[in-house]
Amino acid sequence: MKVIIIGASGTIGKAVAEQLQADHEIIRVGKTQGDFQVDITDEASVAALFAQTGKVDAIISTTGGVHYGPLSETTTEQFNSGLQNKLLGQVRLVLLGQKILNPGGSFTLTTGILAQQPIRTGVNATAVNGALEGFVLAAANELSGLRINAVSPTVLTESLGKYGAFFPGFESADAKRVALAYRRSLEGIETGKVYRVW
Amino acid sequence: MKVIIIGASGTIGKAVAEQLQADHEIIRVGKTQGDFQVDITDEASVAALFAQTGKVDAIISTTGGVHYGPLSETTTEQFNSGLQNKLLGQVRLVLLGQKILNPGGSFTLTTGILAQQPIRTGVNATAVNGALEGFVLAAANELSGLRINAVSPTVLTESLGKYGAFFPGFESADAKRVALAYRRSLEGIETGKVYRVW
Ligand SMILES: NC(=O)c1ccc[n+]([C@@H]2O[C@H](COP(=O)([O-])OP(=O)(O)OC[C@H]3O[C@@H](n4cnc5c(N)ncnc54)[C@H](OP(=O)(O)O)[C@@H]3O)[C@@H](O)[C@H]2O)c1
Ligand SMILES: NC(=O)c1ccc[n+]([C@@H]2O[C@H](COP(=O)([O-])OP(=O)(O)OC[C@H]3O[C@@H](n4cnc5c(N)ncnc54)[C@H](OP(=O)(O)O)[C@@H]3O)[C@@H](O)[C@H]2O)c1
Repeated sequence: MKVIIIGASGTIGKAVAEQLQADHEIIRVGKTQGDFQVDITDEASVAALFAQTGKVDAIISTTGGVHYGPLSETTTEQFNSGLQNKLLGQVRLVLLGQKILNPGGSFTLTTGILAQQPIRTGVNATAVNGALEGFVLAAANELSGLRINAVSPTVLTESLGKYGAFFPGFESADAKRVALAYRRSLEGIETGKVYRVW
Repeated sequence: MKVIIIGASGTIGKAVAEQLQADHEIIRVGKTQGDFQVDITDEASVAALFAQTGKVDAIISTTGGVHYGPLSETTTEQFNSGLQNKLLGQVRLVLLGQKILNPGGSFTLTTGILAQQPIRTGVNATAVNGALEGFVLAAANELSGLRINAVSPTVLTESLGKYGAFFPGFESADAKRVALAYRRSLEGIETGKVYRVW
């Protein structure tokens, strides 16, 4: 299959590309790196990306930023930044991407364990991930002939240096194990599912 | 208790005000009606409302608009309109409202059955409600000394004329029954809960 990975240079995206590259044609996309560049928060940028790639069989998103900070200090603008980035950015990939997917094609988005297991300073992340899981559940009923799923990783072992302190007592998962869930979504038959790796 | 109801002139808000008014001092707020007016999508408007009301014991929100339409025709801008209104609008009430709640005070937001039970054209609603339920779950851990819950109604019997065709085979609930859940949130001891009336 011809597969676009948006966020292919990231901790998760790199592992997903390695997991899939022997069996599929991978188009690596990043904000600054990869075969193509895109900014998921920018409508024209995403439209331009899909005009360049043309038709594909799958779009995998392993990107998206949220706001971290104590709720007592969070501004509406900061909260909105996560809505505009990880949430609306990935939704945009689906709204525009549904026109360039071949019949039988699939979307795989990325949510995360915070959807159900809140951590300190993570209110925006929990809300954003909850929205994405709702989006996948509902969109699956309307994307006729296409599939959509999400992967919800726990904190990655490779990210413990950066985020470990925010996940006290959480079990981590290796990027290699997380990447399997993306293959399951891509090559499986299910739709509207969230594959939890935790 | 001194209780602000935002959306007090609506189908749900009116029933909530009736449910509570014998036992509490109610401040009725709407976009065009009520004791005070506010636009939840406007930061300055919400700040001005809370400056006018001063300290209160509870903020109940029974308002919020989302986008309805087939996913194949939904634009990113339309999807964002629901994020900005029902989602970020209610989040804004909490971010600003946490400063005017008396100790022991509470927030009650409104989500809806679509969070878990998608309907045709309702992808935005499912995503928005999912985000709100995540927000409540996570914010409950950070709002020290305050509580936050949400009420998730099925379609109201009073709204069947307007929305009934979108809810084929769904059981409706009377506004009076839905209003009980708001009392439970207001006067109960729980936090981080979603009271489903379905
Ligand atoms: N890491 C974890 O432990 C973990 C756990 C659970 C969930 N997640 C979720 O998984 C996703 C990826 O996390 P990660 O840690 O793998 O990320 P990461 O290592 O920081 O990589 C981010 C990737 O996204 C690209 N990117 C950044 N901003 C972009 C934009 N505006 N538009 C398009 N692409 C953009 C980057 O491209 P360039 O390199 O070209 O700049 C890079 O490829 C996030 O949604 C995160 O919340 C991560
Ligand atoms: N009705 C149902 O069957 C049902 C079922 C499940 C969930 N819900 C949810 O419950 C909530 C209320 O629904 P409803 O049917 O009761 O609504 P409604 O009858 O349409 O009433 C809306 C209320 O919100 C106020 N309002 C409108 N826009 C506003 C804004 N930008 N800022 C502040 N206030 C604003 C209105 O004020 P004015 O009158 O002053 O203009 C009115 O009081 C919505 O979130 C809806 O999704 C409804």
